[in-house]
Amino acid sequence: MQRKKIEKLRKELIQKTKKKVIEHYKGRDIHIIRAVNTLEDIDSVFNLLFEDIREWYSVHFPELERLVKGNETYLMLVAKLCNRTEFNKENILAYYSNKEQAEKIAKTAKKSIGSPLKEKDSKRISKLAEKCLSLKKQRNALCSYIESEMQKQMPAFTSIAGAILGARLLSEAGSIEKLAMMPSSTIQVIGAEKALFRHLKTGSKPPKHGIIFQHPLLRRVKRKNRGKMARTLANKLSIAAKEDFFGKKNNGKKLLEELEKKARELQ
Amino acid sequence: MQRKKIEKLRKELIQKTKKKVIEHYKGRDIHIIRAVNTLEDIDSVFNLLFEDIREWYSVHFPELERLVKGNETYLMLVAKLCNRTEFNKENILAYYSNKEQAEKIAKTAKKSIGSPLKEKDSKRISKLAEKCLSLKKQRNALCSYIESEMQKQMPAFTSIAGAILGARLLSEAGSIEKLAMMPSSTIQVIGAEKALFRHLKTGSKPPKHGIIFQHPLLRRVKRKNRGKMARTLANKLSIAAKEDFFGKKNNGKKLLEELEKKARELQ
Repeated sequence: MQRKKIEKLRKELIQKTKKKVIEHYKGRDIHIIRAVNTLEDIDSVFNLLFEDIREWYSVHFPELERLVKGNETYLMLVAKLCNRTEFNKENILAYYSNKEQAEKIAKTAKKSIGSPLKEKDSKRISKLAEKCLSLKKQRNALCSYIESEMQKQMPAFTSIAGAILGARLLSEAGSIEKLAMMPSSTIQVIGAEKALFRHLKTGSKPPKHGIIFQHPLLRRVKRKNRGKMARTLANKLSIAAKEDFFGKKNNGKKLLEELEKKARELQ
Repeated sequence: MQRKKIEKLRKELIQKTKKKVIEHYKGRDIHIIRAVNTLEDIDSVFNLLFEDIREWYSVHFPELERLVKGNETYLMLVAKLCNRTEFNKENILAYYSNKEQAEKIAKTAKKSIGSPLKEKDSKRISKLAEKCLSLKKQRNALCSYIESEMQKQMPAFTSIAGAILGARLLSEAGSIEKLAMMPSSTIQVIGAEKALFRHLKTGSKPPKHGIIFQHPLLRRVKRKNRGKMARTLANKLSIAAKEDFFGKKNNGKKLLEELEKKARELQ
């Protein structure tokens, strides 16, 4: 009898948990959170692979990295031309529109101190560069996916924070609901938990801002005013998050205007 | 006059440095080193991205990861089918040959507790899975590149250590020459520098092995005999490296046989 009861209870509890899990995964915000986490990883992955390719290719043509601006152009040249003998002006101009620089590169390629590449080496390197470029493409597609989703799910919040920063804040908070329930002082220090708890424990200075520091308006303000600006920004973000979650109104524009006015005052 | 002399000296020194740099990058071993470093990075990159994809896709179909063996099969199913409605038996069997398991997956897909995916979500996830798979392909191509290069540059060493482990040892040593100059006791603890210097400083136990621990013969031996086996392995590796660098003879086979005999004794 006892056993039967326990069995019944167990089943009911499993049912309840299942429901909760389903509930948790029902919102659209979970996709944004997963996407922005992936985005961060892709960024670090890209840098890691780029560094490897740069190091490897520099055996063959060490001068190139100084002559080209931008990782993507560099990768493009490596992927498409690779061997130094291919680096004549016409070929370079097909992937790099800077005429003056292209001439310089072509000239340097002829007298480079790098060692020659074999066919199989250049094949490996150029394939890697290609992969790296296509990762960048994926990153950009993911970025615009996040932007459109954020625009739809949290219009007011996004118009103030921007899509990527907004998505990061959302990811740290866990869900739109949790974000809407947060007081603005919490939003202000999201991502600076370490400094915050150090403050609470040892009495050191409290953090002025967490990841909202990445916001362009905050960077424009003078250093001594950043704490003030961060507080204002967090205030507006908190209002916007509540609007997005509870209401149908979108006062994002008005909030942003107020924020910009404040930024001008504190500049 | 003085200035002229300095200028001349400077130019000569630059010439000399240039020569040295060229010398350093002339060997074929530098390509192996760069390639094996890239290989390690690709491995960690793959794991990172796989984890992201798994987490994201689990919002839609959390049961799948337990039902499929192997990351690549999982990614293949996500990339090709993605939406749960596509998971019928025929579709699954196209990418996963296990008939019994395929049936199970198809059944689970129908009653999964995951939330539905929109078109745009599934597009993002499947593209990411595709990228991840193509990274794996690149990894394998790089792997066989390293194998063929190691076979050519260090035949004896490779026949004992294996291509990838051999390339890692080469990468830690810096060049074939440096590896050939190393005493076997150094080869034994390559990669365990931290433990070695702790031993020298504080008198703690010395490390028994560095990255040669990855060698299959070493893992087969009883725990208490591992130090002995590591010493023997390092001995043979050191002999092989010297053969590869100085001589034209390849005694790799003989060395390997001796090693295997020792392993049987110590088992």
